Amino acid sequence: MIANDPIEHLIGLLSRLPGLGRRSARRAVLKMLMDPAGRMLPLAEALQHAAEAVRPCETCGNLDTASPCGICRDAHRDRRLVCVVEGVADLWALERAHAHRGTYHVLGGLLSALGGTGPEDLSIAPLLRRIEEDGIEEVILALPATVDGATTAHYLTDRLKPTGTTVTRLAQGVPIGGALDVLDDGTLAAAFKARRPL
Amino acid sequence: MIANDPIEHLIGLLSRLPGLGRRSARRAVLKMLMDPAGRMLPLAEALQHAAEAVRPCETCGNLDTASPCGICRDAHRDRRLVCVVEGVADLWALERAHAHRGTYHVLGGLLSALGGTGPEDLSIAPLLRRIEEDGIEEVILALPATVDGATTAHYLTDRLKPTGTTVTRLAQGVPIGGALDVLDDGTLAAAFKARRPL
Ligand SMILES: [Zn+2]
Ligand SMILES: [Zn+2]
Repeated sequence: MIANDPIEHLIGLLSRLPGLGRRSARRAVLKMLMDPAGRMLPLAEALQHAAEAVRPCETCGNLDTASPCGICRDAHRDRRLVCVVEGVADLWALERAHAHRGTYHVLGGLLSALGGTGPEDLSIAPLLRRIEEDGIEEVILALPATVDGATTAHYLTDRLKPTGTTVTRLAQGVPIGGALDVLDDGTLAAAFKARRPL
Repeated sequence: MIANDPIEHLIGLLSRLPGLGRRSARRAVLKMLMDPAGRMLPLAEALQHAAEAVRPCETCGNLDTASPCGICRDAHRDRRLVCVVEGVADLWALERAHAHRGTYHVLGGLLSALGGTGPEDLSIAPLLRRIEEDGIEEVILALPATVDGATTAHYLTDRLKPTGTTVTRLAQGVPIGGALDVLDDGTLAAAFKARRPL
């Protein structure tokens, strides 16, 4: 009797999003219900449009309305520099920091013995193919400073050695255990600039 | 180049919701984009459905898919007891606490000298009409323990006196300056039970 199905259903869906608990989901729904046409319908349309229009880039794994994505198509980007990231959130963080003038490669995760994630679960074969075909000179590993991040960096360094490409990683400066996409832009840009060969 | 329009547009709309900053909006969008059909479209549909189906109850101001709302239509509710609340969030909080077995009246705000909210901006005339027409015996003021809440309670007590209805308010126990809808259910139910006449 508190609230009927559509409201409870909506609160349930919203509260499953990261960063939103049940209480904030309730407040958000109430605020939107004060102005359904101005707040609720535009959000519904934006969600529907994004769901239909956005897809992963076939080249790098970034999310965009086109594939290849805007970064891969950008003629001003240096294609000889590829920055390898765990996921799109880290790609966005590096872009916000204006840290990188090359292109990206999204692994889609990290190697994890505990999580059962092996090399075949990540976009590693496509990365090796890009290096062979596209004349990539430097692969910058922008991976988190965690156990899984270090494991993945070591594994990639071994796999990339035969290609003759220079492999670098971000400077220490990324806090231990820290995720890239919660770093302030300055720290992230500095760590990027001070990257060093592995 | 970070993200194209549909993604940025969606992040912008989400980050305007209470409780969601730009960072959590970004994380929520990324999580949804991992599974657009399973996460994004259902949320879009739920929003659209709620926007179309939910309306304010003409009697009490609650939000529901029908007017009169489920609470006003419920034959097991005691219509002689009306609980007056600032907004729908507080009504929901009282329902979650199972604090009240009567009906409600949503004022739609509080009197505020600073905020420029006068009696004509609130649902006070409809409350007086309900008292006249529906044989209401007790009006329970469940208003926040703030300056505006106290001002509104005093004003309503004066306006309700001529009707002969008993006016009560929640027991002290609601923390000073505290909003009702962030209280734990137990405190809220206890304060409700220990309400006293004004
Ligand atoms: Zn791309
Ligand atoms: Zn109602």
